[in-house]
Amino acid sequence: MTINIAVTGAAGQIGYALLFRLASGALAANQPVSLRLLEVTPALPALDGVEMELRDCAFPLLREIIKTDDAETAFADADVVFLVGARPRGPGMERKDLLEANAAIFSAQGKALNAAAKKTVKIIAVGNPANTNCLIARANAPDLPDSAFSAMTRLDHNRAIAALADKTNNPLSAIRQVMIWGNHSATQYPDLHHASVAGAAALSLVDEAWYQNTYIPEVQQRGAAIIKARGASSAASAASAALDHMRDWHNGETAADDVLSMAIVSSGQYDISPGLVYSYPVRTSGGAATVVENLPINDFSRARMQASEQELIEERDAVRHLLP
Amino acid sequence: MTINIAVTGAAGQIGYALLFRLASGALAANQPVSLRLLEVTPALPALDGVEMELRDCAFPLLREIIKTDDAETAFADADVVFLVGARPRGPGMERKDLLEANAAIFSAQGKALNAAAKKTVKIIAVGNPANTNCLIARANAPDLPDSAFSAMTRLDHNRAIAALADKTNNPLSAIRQVMIWGNHSATQYPDLHHASVAGAAALSLVDEAWYQNTYIPEVQQRGAAIIKARGASSAASAASAALDHMRDWHNGETAADDVLSMAIVSSGQYDISPGLVYSYPVRTSGGAATVVENLPINDFSRARMQASEQELIEERDAVRHLLP
Repeated sequence: MTINIAVTGAAGQIGYALLFRLASGALAANQPVSLRLLEVTPALPALDGVEMELRDCAFPLLREIIKTDDAETAFADADVVFLVGARPRGPGMERKDLLEANAAIFSAQGKALNAAAKKTVKIIAVGNPANTNCLIARANAPDLPDSAFSAMTRLDHNRAIAALADKTNNPLSAIRQVMIWGNHSATQYPDLHHASVAGAAALSLVDEAWYQNTYIPEVQQRGAAIIKARGASSAASAASAALDHMRDWHNGETAADDVLSMAIVSSGQYDISPGLVYSYPVRTSGGAATVVENLPINDFSRARMQASEQELIEERDAVRHLLP
Repeated sequence: MTINIAVTGAAGQIGYALLFRLASGALAANQPVSLRLLEVTPALPALDGVEMELRDCAFPLLREIIKTDDAETAFADADVVFLVGARPRGPGMERKDLLEANAAIFSAQGKALNAAAKKTVKIIAVGNPANTNCLIARANAPDLPDSAFSAMTRLDHNRAIAALADKTNNPLSAIRQVMIWGNHSATQYPDLHHASVAGAAALSLVDEAWYQNTYIPEVQQRGAAIIKARGASSAASAASAALDHMRDWHNGETAADDVLSMAIVSSGQYDISPGLVYSYPVRTSGGAATVVENLPINDFSRARMQASEQELIEERDAVRHLLP
C-alpha cells in the first residue's frame, strides 16, 4: 500500500537532503511512496526543479509527486508528515518575534492537519523552535490524538551516541541507552547516567568532569559548530535523523536494552508539565512510541531536566495568546 | 568485508548528496563502509563540516572517514571510486580551456589510481566533461584494465526512462531497453528503437515527430532545464544516478530483457573508435559490465551515434598533447 508522505519546506536544504532518501525507499523498504510537497508560493518555481530531479531519478517506488502551496492539499490523507519548513531568525529579530512568526505558520498547519490528514498520521516537527512549533500545531488539531505529534531530538541523540563512541573508542553498535531530555535547543540534556558502552556503565568509562564540562556542552552546541565549519546549518544530518525518527516510529521495534529520544506531548511523565512537547527516552513498537518510565533520576539530572522544561514553559507562554 | 569508497570533490553539492546515501548503506546493503574523501586544499575546512555531519548521523555501517587533499591517500586500496570533482567552466573560458584544465586534474588522479587503488577497482567519472575526463584518467593508469573505468550516462538513462513513462502514462517498471549512446553531453543519443513499454515497442506508441523533435532534445538538454528551474545544476539526481550506476555494476544482475547505459572504454563495438569512453547499452553480472552487441542499428541511429563519437574524438584531440 502506498504511503502518503508530506514534507513542508520541501525546496529548502533539509528538504532537498530528505526527499531523495524518502523517494529511494529509505523510510519503508519496498513500500510505494506518494510525496506531497508544500512550499510557500515564492518557492514554488524552485520546487519545480526539485520535482524534475526527483522524476529524473526514476525511483522505482516513487509513484506520485504533488506540489502545492496549500497545506490541506499537502496533508490530504497523509500517513506521515515532516514539518521541516519554519521561519529562520532574521537580522534584529528577537526570540519572541521568532516564536510568534512560527506560531502563525504552525497554527495554520495544525488546522490543516486536523482537517485533512489521516487520524493515524505521524507528525514530526523539524523546523525550529521544533518543540514549541509542535505544541502549536498540536493545539490547533483537536481531532488528532497527542500521540500523532512529535518533534525531533534524534539528531541530538545521534550526535550524543557518536560522541560517546568516539571518546571511548568503541563502535556505535556498542552504545546503549543514551538519551536526550527536554528541548531541541542548547538547554537539552544529554544523559549518560543510564548509558552503557559494550556492557559497561558509560559514566564508569569517562571522567565526570569531561562529561559535565565537555560532552554535555559539545552535544548542546553541536549545531553551532557545524555552522561554523560548513558555513551553513546541518542539512543532510538533520534529514537523516528525521528519517531515522520516522522509520523507527513507523516500522521499528526498539530493542529492550536500548532507547531512542523523541520529543512528544508530555502527559506528566517524570513530573514534566503536561502538554509540553518534551524529549524523553522512548521505545517504539507496532507504530507506537512509549516513554520509558521509572528510570532513577539523580539531582544532577533533575536540575537539567527542569532547566529545559523551564525554557519550554517560557516558549509556550510567549505564544500562549496565539493558541486556541 | 569493508568496502573502501573514494569520492573526489567530496565537499561539493553532488558529493554532499552522495556521501550520506553511501554511508547509509545504499551501495551495498549491510556492507561496512570506509569513506575516503578527496578535496582541493582550500575546501578542506568545508570538508570538516561534512565529516562532522556524517559522524552525527551515527550510521551503523560507516566505519571510517579519511579526509585528504592527496589523491594517493584517497585512493589507497580503493574498491570503488567516484570521480565527482572537476573544474567547472568559468566566465570567458573556452571549451578547449575547460578540457585542458580538467586534463590536468584527471591526469594526476589517473596516476594516483594506478599507484594506489586495488587492481579490481571500479571507477566512475561524474565530473564533466565526464567521458573525456575518464579517458584521461585511463591513459594515465597503465597498470589498471580498461574494465576498471567508466563515465556516467545513467542520469541521462534515468531521465530517458522517466520521460518515456510519463509520455506513455505507464509506470517506470513497464519500461525496458531504453539506452543512451555516446557522450554525456548534448550530442548524446537517447535511443528508443529497442525500447518497450509494457511489452509493446516504444516507437509504436509515440509519434515519430515527438520522438525526434521533442523527446531527444529534451533528454539531451535536461541538465540546462534543471539549472533554469533550480538556479543550480543537478546535484541529488546526479548523485542518485552515480549510486545506481555503481550499485548495479558492483552487485547487480541486469535482467535479460533490459539494459543499462554506461560509458566505458570502447574496444570498437558498433564501429566506435577504440579507446574512446563511449556510452553503450550494457548488462552487469558478477561485478562486470558487458556491452550488449548485435543490436540492429538503422541509418537514423547510426548518424546520431557517429555525431556523438565525432564530438568525443574532438575532445580527445584537444587534450592529446597532454596524454602520456
